[in-house]
Amino acid sequence: MNVYAVIMAGGAGTRFWPASRSHRPKQLLPLAADPNESLLAATVRRLHPLINPENIFIATGAHLLEASAKILPNVPKHQILAEPVPRNTAPCIGWATATIARKAPEAIVCVLPSDHFMGDEEEFRATVARAIESAKQGLLTTIGILPTRPDTGFGYIEVGQKISTHAWEVARFVEKPNRERAEEFLAGGKHLWNGGMFFFRAKDMLVAIDTYLPELANGLKAIDEAAAAGNEPTVLAEIFPKLPSISIDHGVMEKADKLAVVQGDFGWSDVGSWESAWELAKKDDDGNALPDGAVVVDARNNLAVDLTTRADGKKKIVALIGVSDLVIVETDDALLVIPRDRAQDVRSAVDVLKSRGKTGLL
Amino acid sequence: MNVYAVIMAGGAGTRFWPASRSHRPKQLLPLAADPNESLLAATVRRLHPLINPENIFIATGAHLLEASAKILPNVPKHQILAEPVPRNTAPCIGWATATIARKAPEAIVCVLPSDHFMGDEEEFRATVARAIESAKQGLLTTIGILPTRPDTGFGYIEVGQKISTHAWEVARFVEKPNRERAEEFLAGGKHLWNGGMFFFRAKDMLVAIDTYLPELANGLKAIDEAAAAGNEPTVLAEIFPKLPSISIDHGVMEKADKLAVVQGDFGWSDVGSWESAWELAKKDDDGNALPDGAVVVDARNNLAVDLTTRADGKKKIVALIGVSDLVIVETDDALLVIPRDRAQDVRSAVDVLKSRGKTGLL
Repeated sequence: MNVYAVIMAGGAGTRFWPASRSHRPKQLLPLAADPNESLLAATVRRLHPLINPENIFIATGAHLLEASAKILPNVPKHQILAEPVPRNTAPCIGWATATIARKAPEAIVCVLPSDHFMGDEEEFRATVARAIESAKQGLLTTIGILPTRPDTGFGYIEVGQKISTHAWEVARFVEKPNRERAEEFLAGGKHLWNGGMFFFRAKDMLVAIDTYLPELANGLKAIDEAAAAGNEPTVLAEIFPKLPSISIDHGVMEKADKLAVVQGDFGWSDVGSWESAWELAKKDDDGNALPDGAVVVDARNNLAVDLTTRADGKKKIVALIGVSDLVIVETDDALLVIPRDRAQDVRSAVDVLKSRGKTGLL
Repeated sequence: MNVYAVIMAGGAGTRFWPASRSHRPKQLLPLAADPNESLLAATVRRLHPLINPENIFIATGAHLLEASAKILPNVPKHQILAEPVPRNTAPCIGWATATIARKAPEAIVCVLPSDHFMGDEEEFRATVARAIESAKQGLLTTIGILPTRPDTGFGYIEVGQKISTHAWEVARFVEKPNRERAEEFLAGGKHLWNGGMFFFRAKDMLVAIDTYLPELANGLKAIDEAAAAGNEPTVLAEIFPKLPSISIDHGVMEKADKLAVVQGDFGWSDVGSWESAWELAKKDDDGNALPDGAVVVDARNNLAVDLTTRADGKKKIVALIGVSDLVIVETDDALLVIPRDRAQDVRSAVDVLKSRGKTGLL
């Protein structure tokens, strides 16, 4: 099997504070339907049987190496790549691709985010299989999500000519639009959401990096030589921080010409806020997603998340009386209460804590 | 000094769940202005210098003896009277009065609730001094609180003829009125709130109990003889549970004829709900009463109480964003969120837990 996955699991993210922290970012949290499975674990699990753990690489930060390994006991630990510092997605994907190419020069690489949700996992795998087929033709392929609303929070992909049964040319990548353009995109039917998933032959990506990001290519070659010489960690620590911090979108995809997009329609969510987490969660008849044993009196459409720990291992009783549309999140050191429709404003709490120097809480 | 206080500190109370519990009832909680002083401790403190701890008796339940003693290091421990079971206020006041009378037959006794708030403590002491003067005349005296609103939650005292500078006859005691009558009372200016405070010569109360509650009087005599014989605890455990469970209001005050009422106007509150606790608490400019270090973004008129304990002794950060008029209370085993104006409905959460048999949480 020549197909590999690289799961990008380096995100920091503050949108799920106080649940998410620098040492426990979004992908390590159970923010989707199953309260016992982290988004990262779900990302690995749902690739089976298309791509299995022995072919999965995790690209994460050094400070998240142990926590990620613990969540993914079936992924070989040497395939968890720890970036010394975050340098955006181009160095991340470049390094992972070069690492895979050393082992399997003819590899097809699937790059996937670690913190998204797929409602229909079978259809997701079918779409990934189509993207792999496209990549085999030498095309840098992405999955474009069929939009369901005029969202202004995502980049869009304008679809061009049809290439094959399931693949289209990419007319262009479009930055996050304003509301008006987003509505035009939705009505026009020619635009898909950029879901941040990339599929390519390892050699095609390395050639593209050579062409469009020569500085990154040089860095990767030095790391490659160090790996051959057996001193990758030392050279990585020296070189990685100096690599250009640029996204794979800006650095490669928007410049490359052999591109393809495969359409995806599998109940995708980027789980972008507590509001999304509520949408995806299992809810009672009153729309409440609450810990087991909660007491609910005349309360509707609330999300409560209890991440506190007790010496006796028991969970807390959450009692909601007469409140609606709230998000309530508790940890051992913080409690957040915010209306669901203001979930984006969690950042402002984080900003306040930063300005107070309370980085221990972030 | 012949004046003693009996502080009734046996209340169970569910209105402050999850802060209040059977082992930590309302009077042991810091529910008024000072977040570091329980209502019981405040009740003792504010009597100084009128009545000092060596003349103060606490009437409480056996299960609250240690917790009460810990809060009141200056009250002699043998003056903390532990009722084997709660039997309402008449047996409580009768036993405490008989106990004091053994020590000081000419004592004046001031009976005070342990869980109220007095905004103007100097005026409170001045009023108590007036009630003591009235009691010295052989009158069973109560303090009637000058009403500030047509409250339907209190009993009222209809004021009769003036007896002396500060004391009036009691025309009658009135049960909790409906709204219409409460408004009439407020407009008429002849009704005061019954604040549950009683002042009398010990011997007058014992005579009144003899007259109106002979069964209680007999029980008290048996306890008295046992105390003389040195085996009070055994006899108390046997007799107290059989005493008639009746309030001092119904059992004595409403029947007695030598009554007086002294008017009180000292910012009184019975601290009846989380709403009262919010009213009494120190608040920021936006009306929020929150733990130190709270993060507030566009949030107003909230009360948050954090009673959680952490191994490192630090307190939790409470972050409120875009929410108003909420009460949020956390303990190690429960979290409550309820609008301030529904504070009375805390009981419904307690009822749910009772029906589930979760008495460990009550």
